[in-house]
Amino acid sequence: MTDFENSLATIVTVFIKYARKEGDKHKLKKSELKDLINNELSNFLEQIKDQATMDNLMESLDTDGDSECDFQEFMTFVTMVTICCHEFFVQHEDE
Amino acid sequence: MTDFENSLATIVTVFIKYARKEGDKHKLKKSELKDLINNELSNFLEQIKDQATMDNLMESLDTDGDSECDFQEFMTFVTMVTICCHEFFVQHEDE
Repeated sequence: MTDFENSLATIVTVFIKYARKEGDKHKLKKSELKDLINNELSNFLEQIKDQATMDNLMESLDTDGDSECDFQEFMTFVTMVTICCHEFFVQHEDE
Repeated sequence: MTDFENSLATIVTVFIKYARKEGDKHKLKKSELKDLINNELSNFLEQIKDQATMDNLMESLDTDGDSECDFQEFMTFVTMVTICCHEFFVQHEDE
């Protein structure tokens, strides 16, 4: 596989790893999403400690209203983070 | 960086690598997107050889109608491919 393909596969395997911990193994509950962010995005994002931040994040991602984050909803989050990452790269490149 | 963070960074750097080849260095023109797919997704997707496939793909991604693919539009494509990748993993897992 190419680096690019490995990257897409990593996004999938990280989601599956956290989703299968508790309850519906194909969806992230709030605590699983929080653990994923705090463990896997520790250099990109601040640690999430308060409940209100997680409540707001889950509410904004949970478009089907089942209080969990399925893979499609997770990709919305990945897109948000990756767009920020791209903006950082581009700003850095122009300096 | 974690594997997950490296994956997001790889998506950004691959986009930048192809976008800067010709014309607007922050956007993929049709031929750059075609090269990216044929080189970087050679195991996940079939090689694109005909113009009609590229025309249709670019038309579906190009939401702002400038005939190029910016990073946000590219993430729609990445999301589509990664959702297919996730479905493949889940089907495989249940077998």
